[in-house]
Amino acid sequence: MSKPKVFEKPTGVKDYLPEAVVKLRAIENNVLQCMDRWGYREIITPTLEFYDTVGVASSTEDRKLFKLLDRNGTTLVMRSDVTAPIARVVASLLKEQPFPIRLSYHANVFRAFESEAGRDAEFFQTGVELVGDASSESDAEVVALAIASLQAAGVEQFKIALGHVGFLNGLFKETLREHQDAQRSLKECLLNRDYVGYRETIKSLGLPTGVQQELEGILRLRGGQEICSQAKQLTADPTAQQSIAHLCEIWDVLKAYGVSEHVMIDLTMIGDISYYTGMTFEGYAADLGFPVCSGGRYDNLLMHFGRPAPATGFALKTNRILEVVSKRPVEEPKRVLIAYTASSRVEAFLQAKRLREQENAVVETRLIADESIGQATGRLVMTKLDNETYSVGGIVYHDVIEFG
Amino acid sequence: MSKPKVFEKPTGVKDYLPEAVVKLRAIENNVLQCMDRWGYREIITPTLEFYDTVGVASSTEDRKLFKLLDRNGTTLVMRSDVTAPIARVVASLLKEQPFPIRLSYHANVFRAFESEAGRDAEFFQTGVELVGDASSESDAEVVALAIASLQAAGVEQFKIALGHVGFLNGLFKETLREHQDAQRSLKECLLNRDYVGYRETIKSLGLPTGVQQELEGILRLRGGQEICSQAKQLTADPTAQQSIAHLCEIWDVLKAYGVSEHVMIDLTMIGDISYYTGMTFEGYAADLGFPVCSGGRYDNLLMHFGRPAPATGFALKTNRILEVVSKRPVEEPKRVLIAYTASSRVEAFLQAKRLREQENAVVETRLIADESIGQATGRLVMTKLDNETYSVGGIVYHDVIEFG
Repeated sequence: MSKPKVFEKPTGVKDYLPEAVVKLRAIENNVLQCMDRWGYREIITPTLEFYDTVGVASSTEDRKLFKLLDRNGTTLVMRSDVTAPIARVVASLLKEQPFPIRLSYHANVFRAFESEAGRDAEFFQTGVELVGDASSESDAEVVALAIASLQAAGVEQFKIALGHVGFLNGLFKETLREHQDAQRSLKECLLNRDYVGYRETIKSLGLPTGVQQELEGILRLRGGQEICSQAKQLTADPTAQQSIAHLCEIWDVLKAYGVSEHVMIDLTMIGDISYYTGMTFEGYAADLGFPVCSGGRYDNLLMHFGRPAPATGFALKTNRILEVVSKRPVEEPKRVLIAYTASSRVEAFLQAKRLREQENAVVETRLIADESIGQATGRLVMTKLDNETYSVGGIVYHDVIEFG
Repeated sequence: MSKPKVFEKPTGVKDYLPEAVVKLRAIENNVLQCMDRWGYREIITPTLEFYDTVGVASSTEDRKLFKLLDRNGTTLVMRSDVTAPIARVVASLLKEQPFPIRLSYHANVFRAFESEAGRDAEFFQTGVELVGDASSESDAEVVALAIASLQAAGVEQFKIALGHVGFLNGLFKETLREHQDAQRSLKECLLNRDYVGYRETIKSLGLPTGVQQELEGILRLRGGQEICSQAKQLTADPTAQQSIAHLCEIWDVLKAYGVSEHVMIDLTMIGDISYYTGMTFEGYAADLGFPVCSGGRYDNLLMHFGRPAPATGFALKTNRILEVVSKRPVEEPKRVLIAYTASSRVEAFLQAKRLREQENAVVETRLIADESIGQATGRLVMTKLDNETYSVGGIVYHDVIEFG
């Protein structure tokens, strides 16, 4: 255990410099505004929660939770998502508010990773929860809002993969009743999109040819509405059949929203999150291997907080969206430097005030002509960068005004 | 150690419901925009820092730091302010950027209090740091920006108390050289604004009458520019004299900014924070006992991070400002409920889309006329609240549109 150097940060955490913050803020503000337009109002929950309540209810593996003890010896966690805290609020502070309840959030969340993994231990999520509505309309609403949110964030090209945990659960229950371990392995393969591993696992089980074909067949269940009818043929299991029927209803509502072009049904998709109970979805942006959003239905979570209710929602992975849109320019104010001497100070400050009222960003700097100040801070060394910008002290300005 | 109940939160942390969040966001956005107009660009630093670097350098007492261990056994802290993290960034990521460097932030910070104290363990700060400029102009700039920020936040009536740690240090060095313990007691009294205790402590020391009067005299050193000349008469100590001269310069610059009406000099004011080295200030709003902002010069902090530099800055206590402005109305969008049946869905969604584009907040709800959905979520029970608002399911709408 070596002593950290003064300029170091803990593993997996980041500083965001102004150039990144301005883009992150644009995403945050545009997405929250979009969510507000859909009737989702923002909530802020604390960074620290009790381990025994929110920590245990969250979808994060125990070993990935950041834990600490409070003064009374009770274990706290740094929130690993905002879904479980919102469930706590809906069941406590908002317990008198009738369903459905629509809430949005933008927050940093924390997950401890092995240091070699190089993944973020702190990152941002921007999301919504729709609590108290079991209908396919509410599932479609959050998918449509995810699409609107990605567009508001500036993600131009993306695809939503839509699945249902009930389909695979039903199909596996029907065909692999005797192979509990294999069910787990197969799900693991699908989660990691390891289709070779999936096929090999199936072959190794020595199943009847029909069943083997059935299980291999689901790898082809990715596409548009036609997948629903194909899937219905594949299995007679009632859970699987109900899941497909629910997905078809969601698809119809998404068509009414006019957004089905952004959606593909993918019955091989498994939500990473153990608490999903129905529809799940993930959003993929062009040129990025990881999902930029994920969501789904979780009808069992609210029960843990004493107010049982169906619920559905999603979170944008805000940091990944920042990567996608980071090359896009962001509207920034005109930057003006006002240089003055002691005798022109009042005049210079008045001009600065006027320019700020006109939405410019203005820095005032005193030109040192006398010896009254020990450290010379205002000597104006100005470099013309192009016809429109100047560099002074490493900062780019669009205008420099000198008061003599 | 009892098991927490499912709806409980740790001591000292809060949920902010939508009605509070909309006000908190208005403060945050207006203040950050104001700071941007003054040339301060926003930075985001991580929640977790190394204890041995940022934790130790921060102004927070050790026992108030939230500590945890990372996987390597290194002690981490949850940030207790943003000044020390910014010093780390200025000395590392920004080490090539010439001074002065102007940065702003809005962040949650963490302080562990005894549970009985009832104080917030997590709260928000919105502030700036101006690094690399020792001039009285830079001190005046951050005071003037604090005033502009309080105005941007919507605080209408407030006063800035302006002091200088060098004055008392100089005066005490001159008069109480033999009474180190008394110096500490007297400072403690001033920090707590316990003027009775201050007078009694002085009496108990058996000092010569002249010295006693001198020390009692500083309690009257609160007011406008005239205080500077009075203070100059009170002591011959060179440190105290230099401090007064620096305060006079700051006052002159504040007059040029046209904001001196908001400022009073208070030489009895002691910054709570051990690392202040020069000017310090606190902002007080009418009807609130606690300061709503505090700041000052800290010329020794950057040294700890290997890039010695003078620095000055302040932080608004955002939660307290929320209390001050919480009764003020905030501009909110018009809220519209659109109720539809399955057959009018496309038409209803198109109307919702149009209304969202016109900056309304729109919720869609399906009216259940058929039995196809198990849980009836969309039955429209509508209460007219007044001529302009309706209540549906506990939510207030300005308009309800039904598609039959």
